[in-house]
Parts: sequence; C-alpha cells; structure tokens
Amino acid sequence: MTRVELISQIKTKESFLCVGLDTDLDKIPRHLLKLEDPIFEFNKQIIDSTKDFTVAYKPNIAFYECLGEKGWKSLRKTLDYIPSNCFTIADAKRGDIGNTAARYAKAFFDKEASGLDFDSITVAPYMGKDSVTPFIDGDDYKNKWVILLALTSNPGSNDFQQIDGDNGMKLYEEVLIKSQEWASSSQLMFVVGATRGADIGKVRNLAKNSFFLVPGVGAQGGSLEDVVRHGMIEDCGLLINSSRGIIYSGSDEGFANQAGLEAQKIQVEMSKYLKEYKII
Amino acid sequence: MTRVELISQIKTKESFLCVGLDTDLDKIPRHLLKLEDPIFEFNKQIIDSTKDFTVAYKPNIAFYECLGEKGWKSLRKTLDYIPSNCFTIADAKRGDIGNTAARYAKAFFDKEASGLDFDSITVAPYMGKDSVTPFIDGDDYKNKWVILLALTSNPGSNDFQQIDGDNGMKLYEEVLIKSQEWASSSQLMFVVGATRGADIGKVRNLAKNSFFLVPGVGAQGGSLEDVVRHGMIEDCGLLINSSRGIIYSGSDEGFANQAGLEAQKIQVEMSKYLKEYKII
Repeated sequence: MTRVELISQIKTKESFLCVGLDTDLDKIPRHLLKLEDPIFEFNKQIIDSTKDFTVAYKPNIAFYECLGEKGWKSLRKTLDYIPSNCFTIADAKRGDIGNTAARYAKAFFDKEASGLDFDSITVAPYMGKDSVTPFIDGDDYKNKWVILLALTSNPGSNDFQQIDGDNGMKLYEEVLIKSQEWASSSQLMFVVGATRGADIGKVRNLAKNSFFLVPGVGAQGGSLEDVVRHGMIEDCGLLINSSRGIIYSGSDEGFANQAGLEAQKIQVEMSKYLKEYKII
Repeated sequence: MTRVELISQIKTKESFLCVGLDTDLDKIPRHLLKLEDPIFEFNKQIIDSTKDFTVAYKPNIAFYECLGEKGWKSLRKTLDYIPSNCFTIADAKRGDIGNTAARYAKAFFDKEASGLDFDSITVAPYMGKDSVTPFIDGDDYKNKWVILLALTSNPGSNDFQQIDGDNGMKLYEEVLIKSQEWASSSQLMFVVGATRGADIGKVRNLAKNSFFLVPGVGAQGGSLEDVVRHGMIEDCGLLINSSRGIIYSGSDEGFANQAGLEAQKIQVEMSKYLKEYKII
C-alpha cells in the first residue's frame, strides 16, 4: 500500500487506528479453544467487528511463532482474511546483515515464497543501513515499508536509546536522522512510544513528514490527545496502535462485539482530531 | 547446555567451531531439489559430515522463515537431528518488549509449544533489559543463553554501534558493560565481528570471562589466528562461526564430504591453538 492510499483510507474511515493482533491462547475466550484453529477464529471475529474503525492491523509475530508451524498457518490465514483496504504490519522487529535481511523480506513480503504478503515490517536499527534497505529496495518492494524502531515505550528503552551520542544527539535521534538518508517518508515510518507525550514532539521535529507507529496508547498508559497534539501533521502522520485494550476488552461469546465498540470509541475520538486539524 | 558442558565439548572435540546452517534452495546441490524436504536433507548430510569437528550449529532463522510453514518444519527436523552434545544457536536477532520477548523465548526454547528447543538465541540490544532477560530468567531457562549483538561485522555496523556515547564509551561498549549487569557469563555471550581483529581485544577487555560468537571468519575475510590472539581466554571463550565457507564448499554429490574436509581443516588449526594456550 502506498502512502497516498494509506492517507486516503485514513480520510475515508476517519480513523488512524491500528489494531494489534497479539493473540494469545491463554487470553482468548474459552469457547474458541475447542475449534480447530482458535487463533485464526479469534482474529477473524475481531477483524469482522473492527474493520470499519481501523486502517491497519498489526499481528505481533512472536505470538504466532511461539506456536511453531501451526502458528505460522494461523498467521497466514489471518493475513489473507484482512481486507485489502487495511494496511498490514508484521510486528517482527527483525534486523540482520544484508543477505539475511533479504531473506526476512521474502518471509514477510513474498507470498509465493512464504505465504505472507504484509505491507510493512518493524525493524531494529542496531545493525545499520544494510539491515534496513533490503526490505524496501527494488521494484518488487517499491510499495513496501520499513517501520524502524526509534524511541520505544518499554522500561528498557532507557538503557541505550537515550544514550547521549555524537554532537549531543541521543541514540534514537541519530537513528531518526541517519535512517532518513536511506529511504523516503513513502517507505519509512518510525516506532515512537506514546508513554512519553513530549518526546513525540522531539521526534516530530526530526522527522517532519514521516508516519509514526505509536504503541502504548491505552493499556500502556499513553494519552491519544497528547500524541495528536505533539505528532499530527497535515497528512495525519500517525498510526496509533491498541492491542490488549481492544482485543481483550470482552472475554465471553460477545468478545468481538465488545472489541468493535472499543475500536469505534477510539475512532470517534480520532475523527474529531482529524476534523480539528482540517485533514477531513 | 551449561557453560561447563560447552567447555567440556570444546576440550573433547579439540574444536571451537560453529557451523552456520544458512541453507538456501538456490545454493544447495541440484540433485537434492527432487527430494521432499531438500533443506532438511542438505542439513542432515552436512551435520553427519561435520559433527566430529564442530561443537555448535547455528541455523540462520531467516533462511527457514522465508519458506513459511514448510521452512519451520525443516528447521524443527534439523534441530531434532543435531546431536545432543552440540550447542545449538537460533540465529534470530530478536528483540522486543518483555511480554513479547517471553513469546520469542517460547518459540525457540519451549519444545512443547513450538517444536523447537535451542540452547541459545541471538538477541538485539536496542530495546534494553526487558527485551533480553525473558530468554534466561526462571527455572525453565536456567541452562539457556542469550547471545547479544555487541559489535557486528557488516557494513552497517558503523552506523550506530560506533557512536561515541556517555563517558566516552561507544554504543557497543555500553552494551557490553550494561548487559553484564543483567546476566552472568554462564548465560550471556556476545556477537563480536571477526573482520576487526583488534576490536576483539577491546571487547575482551570489557568482557573478560564471556564467550564470544564470532562470525565473519572465512567468507567474510576475518583471520582465525587474529581472533584467537585477541580473544582467547583460559576457558577458550570463543565460538567461531563459518557458514558459506563450509556448507557450500562443494556443489555436487560430494558436497557433504567436502564440507566435512573444510570443517576438519579448521578444527585442526583450532586444536593447535587450544594446545598452545594450554586449554587441552
């Protein structure tokens, strides 16, 4: 999906919500467990009930990988089921040398090879340029995206991301600046943690035109309004993820309905901001 | 596998070689392609011919993941086939927040959940402590290892790893120092690129007792002697990986035999160093 198409979807659905599919056998409603593929069945119902209120879905790959081959099958079926007007994110946090990165690109972007064809993948920056560009170089991947870890919202994000580096820049600032030399804002987004409202403004100053994938709103304590005030641009420039806050909002037969209501609640608030900022 | 057991294997086999299983359908001998599972068949023959000369095997997960469910099956069969006296490394470069890292730990360490039970996994440090410790915390994982990226040997390693950070430390040095507060050298190794001989000495000064996994000897141009001179300690403290230089040394029906000869050649050199350093 191109940047133009993504922005068009945001305007049409009046939403910049991403639903995180962190689907966990220990957390899904018990009645699903007797089905052949409970993970897929849960995702299917969540997608049905939320697809009108969300522009993106983000399966967290670890939750599928921990089930081995069966998990990969559930992931493939889930991705096939997501409507084509939704942006898809493989939350995989991969990052390896060039020839290996090219294999991870096949794993997540090449349906013929792996069965999967995501629009984008989250990537870790530690190994530098040749661990990033294989996901977006070349004609086959011209509409694919890297979503690069910049500033995350977990406790360990302070360990290295906030180190003061060359020229008084923190590491995450160096990542933001240097990586924009490798790809345009039509193929490169950043992961920016929402539990630090003011930091989103700092990141925006360094990446004025980029989309940010913002996790941590809701369950992890970030405020949607804070993120919008510090991060919204004229193309919106934000995808706000909510995982547990939506998909586990209900726990019985009505779970999907409940998830839809939660997604709608967020979409209504998002619509208000999109209007306030004259994006729609 | 514990540190004591690993060192014992190094002494018994007179080797600190790790064979990288970067198994690629485009590179394996053509006659294997007509078999049902060419990837496994290739690995099986490579393992048979190299197991007397190597103490570790390192499947590069991207090469399996790019084949989807089928690739995971080949990986599982390969891991089952590796003799139990060999240390196994999932070269996965994972790195995500605590609850997700716990799922990746299940993916690679919990046979019941995923079918896989590696001894260790390579991890990227960008997200900090809570992305690392779930792989080694708790009784179930008390003999598991994290092999943390410190200094890699790819072109992009200069982009961020060499940034001058707090107290005049480079980022990779901060990673080395801080991570040793999280785990002992019985559960934490480091990836240290071999194309920079002298840098291995610098890393050794900061991690005096740790094992290093050293890629880049052979095909990528590093010298075994250089690595030994700068990195060997009284417990050896080195696992030297070779992938392409061994597994693709032959290209016809005799490929496995040729791989065995290449592995043996390296083992003979390693035996000499182990004797010189009075480890055996």
